Amino acid sequence: MPHPDLLFPADPRQREITRELYAHVRDLPLISPHGHIDPRLLADDEPFDDPAHLFVVPDHYLTRMLYSQGVHPDALGVPRRDGSTAAVEPREIWRTFAAHWHLFRGTPSKLWLEQTLDGVFGVTAPLSADTADEIYDAVAGCLARPEFRPRALFERFNIEVLATTESPLDPLTQHAKLAADGWGDRVVSTFRPDDVVDMEFGGLTGAAGTQAWRQRVAKLGEITGEDTLTFTGYLAALRQRRAAFLAMGTTSSDHGHPTARTLVLPEPEKRELFERGLRDEATPADAEAFRAVMLVEFARMSIDDGMVMQLHPGSVRNHNTWLHGAYGTDVGGDIPQATDYVNGLAPLLSEHGNDPSLRLVLYTLDETTFTRELAPLAGGYAALYLGAPWWFLDSPEAMRRFREAVTETAGFANTAGFVDDTRAFCSIPVRHDIARRVDAGFLARLVAEHRLTLDEAAETAADIAYHQPKRIFKVVSE
Amino acid sequence: MPHPDLLFPADPRQREITRELYAHVRDLPLISPHGHIDPRLLADDEPFDDPAHLFVVPDHYLTRMLYSQGVHPDALGVPRRDGSTAAVEPREIWRTFAAHWHLFRGTPSKLWLEQTLDGVFGVTAPLSADTADEIYDAVAGCLARPEFRPRALFERFNIEVLATTESPLDPLTQHAKLAADGWGDRVVSTFRPDDVVDMEFGGLTGAAGTQAWRQRVAKLGEITGEDTLTFTGYLAALRQRRAAFLAMGTTSSDHGHPTARTLVLPEPEKRELFERGLRDEATPADAEAFRAVMLVEFARMSIDDGMVMQLHPGSVRNHNTWLHGAYGTDVGGDIPQATDYVNGLAPLLSEHGNDPSLRLVLYTLDETTFTRELAPLAGGYAALYLGAPWWFLDSPEAMRRFREAVTETAGFANTAGFVDDTRAFCSIPVRHDIARRVDAGFLARLVAEHRLTLDEAAETAADIAYHQPKRIFKVVSE
Amino acid sequence: MPHPDLLFPADPRQREITRELYAHVRDLPLISPHGHIDPRLLADDEPFDDPAHLFVVPDHYLTRMLYSQGVHPDALGVPRRDGSTAAVEPREIWRTFAAHWHLFRGTPSKLWLEQTLDGVFGVTAPLSADTADEIYDAVAGCLARPEFRPRALFERFNIEVLATTESPLDPLTQHAKLAADGWGDRVVSTFRPDDVVDMEFGGLTGAAGTQAWRQRVAKLGEITGEDTLTFTGYLAALRQRRAAFLAMGTTSSDHGHPTARTLVLPEPEKRELFERGLRDEATPADAEAFRAVMLVEFARMSIDDGMVMQLHPGSVRNHNTWLHGAYGTDVGGDIPQATDYVNGLAPLLSEHGNDPSLRLVLYTLDETTFTRELAPLAGGYAALYLGAPWWFLDSPEAMRRFREAVTETAGFANTAGFVDDTRAFCSIPVRHDIARRVDAGFLARLVAEHRLTLDEAAETAADIAYHQPKRIFKVVSE
Repeated sequence: MPHPDLLFPADPRQREITRELYAHVRDLPLISPHGHIDPRLLADDEPFDDPAHLFVVPDHYLTRMLYSQGVHPDALGVPRRDGSTAAVEPREIWRTFAAHWHLFRGTPSKLWLEQTLDGVFGVTAPLSADTADEIYDAVAGCLARPEFRPRALFERFNIEVLATTESPLDPLTQHAKLAADGWGDRVVSTFRPDDVVDMEFGGLTGAAGTQAWRQRVAKLGEITGEDTLTFTGYLAALRQRRAAFLAMGTTSSDHGHPTARTLVLPEPEKRELFERGLRDEATPADAEAFRAVMLVEFARMSIDDGMVMQLHPGSVRNHNTWLHGAYGTDVGGDIPQATDYVNGLAPLLSEHGNDPSLRLVLYTLDETTFTRELAPLAGGYAALYLGAPWWFLDSPEAMRRFREAVTETAGFANTAGFVDDTRAFCSIPVRHDIARRVDAGFLARLVAEHRLTLDEAAETAADIAYHQPKRIFKVVSE
Repeated sequence: MPHPDLLFPADPRQREITRELYAHVRDLPLISPHGHIDPRLLADDEPFDDPAHLFVVPDHYLTRMLYSQGVHPDALGVPRRDGSTAAVEPREIWRTFAAHWHLFRGTPSKLWLEQTLDGVFGVTAPLSADTADEIYDAVAGCLARPEFRPRALFERFNIEVLATTESPLDPLTQHAKLAADGWGDRVVSTFRPDDVVDMEFGGLTGAAGTQAWRQRVAKLGEITGEDTLTFTGYLAALRQRRAAFLAMGTTSSDHGHPTARTLVLPEPEKRELFERGLRDEATPADAEAFRAVMLVEFARMSIDDGMVMQLHPGSVRNHNTWLHGAYGTDVGGDIPQATDYVNGLAPLLSEHGNDPSLRLVLYTLDETTFTRELAPLAGGYAALYLGAPWWFLDSPEAMRRFREAVTETAGFANTAGFVDDTRAFCSIPVRHDIARRVDAGFLARLVAEHRLTLDEAAETAADIAYHQPKRIFKVVSE
Repeated sequence: MPHPDLLFPADPRQREITRELYAHVRDLPLISPHGHIDPRLLADDEPFDDPAHLFVVPDHYLTRMLYSQGVHPDALGVPRRDGSTAAVEPREIWRTFAAHWHLFRGTPSKLWLEQTLDGVFGVTAPLSADTADEIYDAVAGCLARPEFRPRALFERFNIEVLATTESPLDPLTQHAKLAADGWGDRVVSTFRPDDVVDMEFGGLTGAAGTQAWRQRVAKLGEITGEDTLTFTGYLAALRQRRAAFLAMGTTSSDHGHPTARTLVLPEPEKRELFERGLRDEATPADAEAFRAVMLVEFARMSIDDGMVMQLHPGSVRNHNTWLHGAYGTDVGGDIPQATDYVNGLAPLLSEHGNDPSLRLVLYTLDETTFTRELAPLAGGYAALYLGAPWWFLDSPEAMRRFREAVTETAGFANTAGFVDDTRAFCSIPVRHDIARRVDAGFLARLVAEHRLTLDEAAETAADIAYHQPKRIFKVVSE
């Protein structure tokens, strides 16, 4: 169990109010409308692997920090791009990790892991080289027991709904299995079409990018029976896949683009961009324009079919070219860049931003946009909501800065609530708990400074922790 | 009355010091050198309209937030661009507003309205759907009484000098009337020439923009008797209007530009830009260049005639095209954008930045420039001062961040003090009061951390609340 | 002596923890691996000049603030570019300064000077016009005594190692003298090659810039015996000078560029850029490209010879053209600008960022890059470290924001520790002391919020104050 006052302000009066507010939200069910859990985990409900593969190997927050301090990815068992993995025992990985645990002081990873070890596995000894084996054995012992299987933990974690993320090319087999087991309402998918939209997906550029993209577009045609080598058929196929996702419980789409650029073009020009991609003639500017065009297309589809649209732009993917070359994507080599929402989103907003049947949730890696762009936009367009502080900003200090920055202009009601966005299933409760604690601390300051009454703050705390995400993401449960 | 400790830090020691510092400034008269009150209000001294038209309809902070949460501008009685207004009773507008009051938790609007209802109208009941009618009636009852007329409130608010904002095309009839009534020193105008400078004024671009601009330039000729269709005559006419404003008590000009760009050009090139505008041949780049050129011209005029110059760049006007199309300007559809002061202002500063007879007050919507650009510039040029946190940043958290960010590099003496910048007359006292409270809290922290003595802090509090704005804006009173 | 609780958080619990943490670091020796002390000071060990020339004249933090409030540089004895100085007595300079001392409230300059006057010179009277003479005399009296000579103060200040900064063209005569006196390990140089790299050095552009650059390149040839008019000879000469610096104890190089741009080019294209410079044909883009190319060359040299590389980009040098014209460089006329590390550094990092034998310490003037760029980069590349908050950000509030912003992503271990970066010898202890106090306060908050144990925080405090800078900058001592 975390210290009862974990992350609460030190000032006694503020801390007392924080405790009171937190008590209103601590036990509310978890709404997790955006994340990257492998649905197979819950579909198969097999025991987890060893502690190293549960906690360390797949967590790029951990591997990148260790790497930045000279620990080689091979020593952490990070799978190589060619499919091989260095021969290293899980226990050795864990020992290496434990010996470097001091590197995580002051990071959210420290909170996530310590609270998970304690709250989920009952491990209270501080992690270090000395305790590595003892903790490894304790966790491994738990993992072997039925109450540590994924579905049992799902119940214990009090998760009401969890969304995974899948490509339109995914047949949703795992979700069908979940539905067959009666878990269809609790674990849903998110429609993530980047791979069939982005002609530079996975860091491939030029003809290498368009060739791979074309193959995926062709596969989209196979799955749907549409002629996806025409722009009309391509759009129809996407609509068809959306319908299939919606039928399985999906409520939102997710779009990860390098920029927030959107573009409204006449039909022939959109078609021409698409066809230049098919002919391997798309320039980088064409690829960017096509992504921008497609965001507007997806907004239109959302207005028609009701999917909530999520956009998280601004990541330079695979900035670390050596890491990308040797270990592939999603291993910690992505870096944020400055993002222009105001001009980027203008075309889309000009067309559809005032349509309340559109719901567009914006994330950012660039907190300079909090007061300058995101809060004014969300507080000025019916369609816009602010997503939780994302990756690199999904941490106590950044969460606090988010509330301090956006609330005065966008209020609370234009923020979509916390999303854990995680691949690490066991860390879901602590991530939500941290957000609830930080928000309670922020609200407590407003109360202590006589800006809100305690009642207003308590109602707001529950809204942003539970009711708003449920409403904004159109989560249906029970 | 606000809670005596409103906005004061929670820590008991800091709060105690804050109380002491605040006591030094609470009752100082208000200097309001930058705002948007309609001078007719004080010239005519007629009773205010109903509560809805006093508080809700003209306040785009309120209407935009309601709009962002699905309330239609028509339901709030926002006048349409064509001059019509939806048929909706003031009381109905108020009820709609009251029912959504929870949206404003954590926003400065909440503080402004609650403190105004309480401090000015004696209303202490919390606003909600349930209390809407009761509060409406209480306020309406007050408004009918003579002591709630504008001039009476002006006295009660302890305003020493209030500046309104007018175009050079304005005949200053209201200010003449005020002068005739002995109010000429208390209510002055600010010279705001954007409409005769900006070839894209009001969001019109291309020939539509220059045609409208040309008409206003022609009108400027009529008023002044100068041939404003020559660049020389145009500049002479502007100088003449400045002299007329100065004679009526004006001490400053105000310039709202999309960017901070300034430009020094040889005479023939300036003339050519001006003439391209007259011939409807100005490109967007020409319009931007002409604005940039004119900032330098106005700096020169300021050096000659002593007007303080204010610049507030960085707003993308009418970003929400639907709102602009249906309801016109200043209804909440403007959004900030990143602003480059360092390179933008370099030409002007290179010419005139070291001339202490120039006084240029800079505002920003982009707080990323606080430490990187504005504080270093203001702390390095004799002509520069930092304006108060502006629109979207005129709020407690942003005010605090402003002091934390700029003080270490620019000190207090390079900051021009609070301006309320408001259209909402009744909120003037609370806006100043909030600034005084936040600044007292900031200074109290410096005292609590042994960085200033209490005496230094008390003197500084009074300087930034009263003496500095009066001196920097050259306000003459009594 | 400073107030024992100077800069400590006001909250009693946090303050108590801060005291405890600070006690662990207060007396640790000072590691000063980056600064601008004139080595002649310690080589000659002559008494300091009068108080005005010790404190005011050379400190552009002070002169720029006074200048921004209308005090002429001549009145402060700032040497003119032509070598002359206004006839003004040191005591008069000091009186002018003292009369404006209130301008520095809330600035780090106030802390630096007050703590130095008190801690080094025993002066406790508050500085003002009234006390100016008395304090002048007290300080002047001290300066005449042997225990206030530079080497005596060096010992008293508990400095373990101090690095000065020299050009490759510097013959290191002073450092040789220091070595001969047994001070060679305590005072070392930093290799700063900007003047032989930058074709626009000192604000000269076009042919004026390349001509001056060519002369310095020729001088580099004379010193080394290499044919520096070939690119190969130029690189060989730089390597030779690095070897000479290393032999005298240097452990790091320093690079001050307008941007963070780096560039990898084929050999012929690099050569061609170099030769265009020699032929006075280099465009501004060529000059920028050559600087970018040379950063990669220096990274390669660092990998070979082990020098730690420091980069501080983002300053618009000599923004104040009048000040530059009349008083030259480094007098307060430089202004930060937005800096793009993510794309700028990508070429260098792609080549060498994963090589742990490279150590690149990044500084910034643009704090918007803390969370968006610098922390993710430092937490993702083996070669990168974050330098201390630099110039304009070397202040308590900015130091606190630095820790709050970067720790969650980069941890503590990727930060290189405090550098004083100063020309003001007597202020070295207080600058380090302030950093230790602020870091202790930050860590105390983490403890008070139950995010770190007291033991973890105490160990971290000592690491970032002493052990890390020593290790990262490869400082060898004793």
